Amino acid sequence: MKLIEPRNLKGFRDYLPKDQIPRSMIFSKIKGVFERFGFEPLETPVLEYADILAGKYGTEGEKLMYRFKDNGARDVAMRYDLTVPLARVAAQYQNELPKPFKRYQIAPVWRAENTQKGRYREFYQCDVDVVGSEVGIADAECVAMVEEIFLELGIKKFVVKINNRKILNAIMLSAGVAEGKILDAIRAVDKLEKVGAKEVTSELKENAGLNTKQAEQLITLASAKVTNINALKTFVEENLLKQPQATQGLKELSSVFIALKAFGVKNAVIDLSLARGLDYYTSTIFETIITETEDSKKYGSVAGGGRYDQLIKLFTGKDIPAVGISIGIDRLFAAMQDLGLIKNKGIVSVLILNIEESLQTEYLKMLNTLRKAGINAELFYTLADIKKQFAFAEAKSITYGILLGLDEAKKQSVTLRNLETRKQRTIKQKSLLKELQKLLK
Amino acid sequence: MKLIEPRNLKGFRDYLPKDQIPRSMIFSKIKGVFERFGFEPLETPVLEYADILAGKYGTEGEKLMYRFKDNGARDVAMRYDLTVPLARVAAQYQNELPKPFKRYQIAPVWRAENTQKGRYREFYQCDVDVVGSEVGIADAECVAMVEEIFLELGIKKFVVKINNRKILNAIMLSAGVAEGKILDAIRAVDKLEKVGAKEVTSELKENAGLNTKQAEQLITLASAKVTNINALKTFVEENLLKQPQATQGLKELSSVFIALKAFGVKNAVIDLSLARGLDYYTSTIFETIITETEDSKKYGSVAGGGRYDQLIKLFTGKDIPAVGISIGIDRLFAAMQDLGLIKNKGIVSVLILNIEESLQTEYLKMLNTLRKAGINAELFYTLADIKKQFAFAEAKSITYGILLGLDEAKKQSVTLRNLETRKQRTIKQKSLLKELQKLLK
Repeated sequence: MKLIEPRNLKGFRDYLPKDQIPRSMIFSKIKGVFERFGFEPLETPVLEYADILAGKYGTEGEKLMYRFKDNGARDVAMRYDLTVPLARVAAQYQNELPKPFKRYQIAPVWRAENTQKGRYREFYQCDVDVVGSEVGIADAECVAMVEEIFLELGIKKFVVKINNRKILNAIMLSAGVAEGKILDAIRAVDKLEKVGAKEVTSELKENAGLNTKQAEQLITLASAKVTNINALKTFVEENLLKQPQATQGLKELSSVFIALKAFGVKNAVIDLSLARGLDYYTSTIFETIITETEDSKKYGSVAGGGRYDQLIKLFTGKDIPAVGISIGIDRLFAAMQDLGLIKNKGIVSVLILNIEESLQTEYLKMLNTLRKAGINAELFYTLADIKKQFAFAEAKSITYGILLGLDEAKKQSVTLRNLETRKQRTIKQKSLLKELQKLLK
Repeated sequence: MKLIEPRNLKGFRDYLPKDQIPRSMIFSKIKGVFERFGFEPLETPVLEYADILAGKYGTEGEKLMYRFKDNGARDVAMRYDLTVPLARVAAQYQNELPKPFKRYQIAPVWRAENTQKGRYREFYQCDVDVVGSEVGIADAECVAMVEEIFLELGIKKFVVKINNRKILNAIMLSAGVAEGKILDAIRAVDKLEKVGAKEVTSELKENAGLNTKQAEQLITLASAKVTNINALKTFVEENLLKQPQATQGLKELSSVFIALKAFGVKNAVIDLSLARGLDYYTSTIFETIITETEDSKKYGSVAGGGRYDQLIKLFTGKDIPAVGISIGIDRLFAAMQDLGLIKNKGIVSVLILNIEESLQTEYLKMLNTLRKAGINAELFYTLADIKKQFAFAEAKSITYGILLGLDEAKKQSVTLRNLETRKQRTIKQKSLLKELQKLLK
């Protein structure tokens, strides 16, 4: 028989329990925050008709899509993000959803990325969006949730950068970018922090039709140190008075910051250089970076999003405003590992050691009692070498061991061992459950 | 602009919040039971190399697989079940996993089923497996978990049918089925309850090479009313003494039932007609049916599995015993809906109604206080018609409404309204949080 080599596709990962346990704790904290803010869970299929997803992610994105013909020759594609499926849902069920519709979705997406850059082809997104409201409170809730989540996860230093596409458009126009070239210019400016002014200048000249002077002026404007609303007001008055879009953008951002203040958000700053690559944003945009280390680029953007008031229109023909933010859980998890914020905590609390042949039924009954009381417990299935049993407990980070031999059984007692400290004591069997419940509280 | 029609692929579903909320509560109960029994979470990719999955599910299964060439021309397939990926993982990481390896996985799988029969092409499985142990306690834990889960979900009447492939093989052999035809005969007997003795007889004649007399004898044996271990012992002595496999199977089932008894399991019975369609089972097999209604076939099999001691060998060349059970959550959910066990419970507890322009900041601050205290709360974003706001609360099954108008604001008070009973009372603002915490406990 020829063996099949057990292996993963490049860019795809298994999460073994030691990673999946902390990962799923992070998911449940994120879920908790989303729900506290009034967002409800939605689930959409992994496969969609390809035309639902196509044409929304730019030419680059299009190439990365997992798209194929199914058994019925339908043109289908795997979920590329969680925003476009939400837009479809918002259109498809517009008469039965609450208005506004506040939903979250935590699910994997697929992109055939270049794995040599350390990118993955399957990764999770945690998305939260408000559909059907244009008020700044919705935008502010997105930012407040990110702050809440990061603090709950133990990340103390981070910044949520905020900008507004209308202000960015005004900057572009005032620097001489033609209307039709704005998206190209935005894509160039988006790389400012990553690649520096020099490269962005040449990209602006090449793709956005600017001359050197215009490109430099644009970069100067986008790099202006404007971090709060008052500074932004002055900046608009000084530089963008001729652009009505700028005034509108300023008004929108002001209402976002009023809500942020009421929510007590501390880590939000305006950043005029923030552009975001995706085409569909129309107003507020966000991006979150972790600043725990000196190199602020180290972990990349771990949460980003914005307002996309035109996307749902592709399905409905009507303007339906929407705003959302997406947390890149895999990047966040990697950052937390690097920062030592992931604790190696097991899920199982108690292991009954299997040390006496004649007590098998006793072990099973004791196990059953613990489980019925809500304790995560196991029995080592076989009368194996005790070292093997301890190794098993260690592999699963089990804290407590229970030893019941013939001696203990005669005296109706049991030995309770802390497997980490290796301290143990013998107690009455009838007080075991209470004792464990006290220890595990 | 041509609109894109928002729609799902046939056999694929969206779960809107009103379904996803109870569904995710069921997931978390199932997870809780799995963890209480010492099982840890594993996650594997949706896409696998096709050769990992191919040839494991029979010719029928093979046809239903979502298999395609990816952008790099690799032959890939979407997850068809959670057992084969587990077998791959068990082989791939054999030196780093705890022994035995007890894992659960709750995740969707894809099969291009005939949707006209009401089948879905994307559905969830909740799988729990023990890899690396041949003792009957492992099998018994699978059954005990299913019983625990069903009881927790409020399903009172159900039966976990148990059989053993070795006993089934012995029955086949003693009825004259040739060694090479055993799997065909098993597949025929598997349909006994669904299609009746007559059709199974003709299938046995057609596919398993039996004559009418042999087929009838086989059906008589497989239909024998043997429901407990003592009856099975007598049955083996009377009918299968010449088959050494039967004695082995009896021994295995006995040890499973000893553990089941110690666990206090009440809903497990032996059923000699239980066969299970899949090829890879080698010993114990299980199937669970809900018997709350008169028609026991109404909901189909909602949880099934068994022991597959040869599957992992395809990847390792070594025998590695394994046993597991899979809960069909979508069928279970449908059954629970039908039985009225799904309560329409919202996730959001409190809505602050937006009734006064000048109090917007007050609303936001109050909202923030509630959320920081761990209460799932919302503010209606805009000063809209109150009927619209009540409709929003109803759509999300929000229980409590908070009304703060100018009158209340002057008196530092607030009106707390039960949106279901429509009863309301005015209390001091400073006691609002405590009052809500009491109500929501």
